[in-house]
Amino acid sequence: MNTERPLILVVNDDGVRAPGIRTLIRLMKTIGDVIVVAPNSPQSGMSHAITLEAPLYLDEVTVDGGTQIEYACSGTPADCVKLAVNKLAPRKPDLCVSGINHGSNSSTNVLYSGTMAAAIEGAIKGIPSIGFSLLDHTHEADFSQSEDFVIKIAKQVLENGLPKSVCLNVNIPKVSKEEIKGIKICRQADGMWQEDIQKRVSPLGRVYYWLYGTFKNHDKGADTDIWALENNYISVVPVQFDLTAHHSIQLLKSWNNG
Amino acid sequence: MNTERPLILVVNDDGVRAPGIRTLIRLMKTIGDVIVVAPNSPQSGMSHAITLEAPLYLDEVTVDGGTQIEYACSGTPADCVKLAVNKLAPRKPDLCVSGINHGSNSSTNVLYSGTMAAAIEGAIKGIPSIGFSLLDHTHEADFSQSEDFVIKIAKQVLENGLPKSVCLNVNIPKVSKEEIKGIKICRQADGMWQEDIQKRVSPLGRVYYWLYGTFKNHDKGADTDIWALENNYISVVPVQFDLTAHHSIQLLKSWNNG
Repeated sequence: MNTERPLILVVNDDGVRAPGIRTLIRLMKTIGDVIVVAPNSPQSGMSHAITLEAPLYLDEVTVDGGTQIEYACSGTPADCVKLAVNKLAPRKPDLCVSGINHGSNSSTNVLYSGTMAAAIEGAIKGIPSIGFSLLDHTHEADFSQSEDFVIKIAKQVLENGLPKSVCLNVNIPKVSKEEIKGIKICRQADGMWQEDIQKRVSPLGRVYYWLYGTFKNHDKGADTDIWALENNYISVVPVQFDLTAHHSIQLLKSWNNG
Repeated sequence: MNTERPLILVVNDDGVRAPGIRTLIRLMKTIGDVIVVAPNSPQSGMSHAITLEAPLYLDEVTVDGGTQIEYACSGTPADCVKLAVNKLAPRKPDLCVSGINHGSNSSTNVLYSGTMAAAIEGAIKGIPSIGFSLLDHTHEADFSQSEDFVIKIAKQVLENGLPKSVCLNVNIPKVSKEEIKGIKICRQADGMWQEDIQKRVSPLGRVYYWLYGTFKNHDKGADTDIWALENNYISVVPVQFDLTAHHSIQLLKSWNNG
């Protein structure tokens, strides 16, 4: 029987000093030994970007004390996981947790998310991995209502493992602990951003654009993450990185036989 | 009957002046009207990153002449598609093509690829979209052997459309035209990068790291993109952006009923 405490890699995309990751580190220390490798600055919307043509800097940091080892990295969330697994962790982590993100990563937001890219990178490396996000993008977001659920899900994954090449995308509604109805296993809702690009002129007279928009959910299913969140459930979507649209292979094959 | 020429959006991640996109623009002009919105500098490995906290600059450019309208953008490949569709294109494009990338986007490379993120963003917007990549990452890559196939695939997609929420990941082997055996519809191979991180010291005495590695294919299937490419076929993988691991939903549901 393995009596060692599990080794837990904690990463995020909001940067090592964000309240979300500080909460996650504190929670993970109650169930394991923690190593933190997180960006030294915010990396929201960085998706699965990796640093190919620049050197990466790593600094051992102490943010709010404690026994965990922490590194701040100049790279992306995916870089952080690669450096952690290949260079910094004393052994292969038993669990990789990413977040807690300030803001939703439900529906197609998973595609743009640095938080979820870190979890996916963990899964690629064969580590059971979870991305956690709270539906509050402010710095002052209150993570307290979700603490019991975060620990419960992390413990379940440590105990049961996850299917090969699958990680979890966990989103937490912005409601009080009493209002949370529980955990729902979901599929990714079919939604998208409707951009509304703003044109402005800089003081130097140069035209520039701001990319922003409104998220539109086109998916009326009651089995989606957005439905769960709107109904005060914590949503858990199993996420895979095989992007093959297997259902379309036969159709495409028929094109060249016609 | 619609007698208009199709409107084709061309984008890439190597930057608007890369030989790969210049080839793709020339080819697409033979079958449609072309608008180009591409990064003003190389954006390899940027995945589906979007620019959230910085303004975006756009410059109309002329690279090698011709009737097409071209914009160089300070943002990522996904930003380029968002700006093109929401701001720059005179109407919704009939086709979005990305590339031709200098380097492979087969197997899990699709996750890190800015080229494929642009195609996926096109698919999110409801535009039939294709990412093209040649297995030669050098600037001097020879794209001539693939020209007929690129046109053929683009025409097929224009004619047939693609299933909802699906785009194509097309990779071209680095062999002569005579050696190419044809097109194979494939699934994404189960491979990954085995990193080998190099530690160095800067002239100022600061330690830094280079992320590099070797790609390992663990997948022996003869229905994968890597198999096709190794056997001199052009690989075509239908790619979806619903990342839900549907096959794992029942398993996860059972955890909370135990």
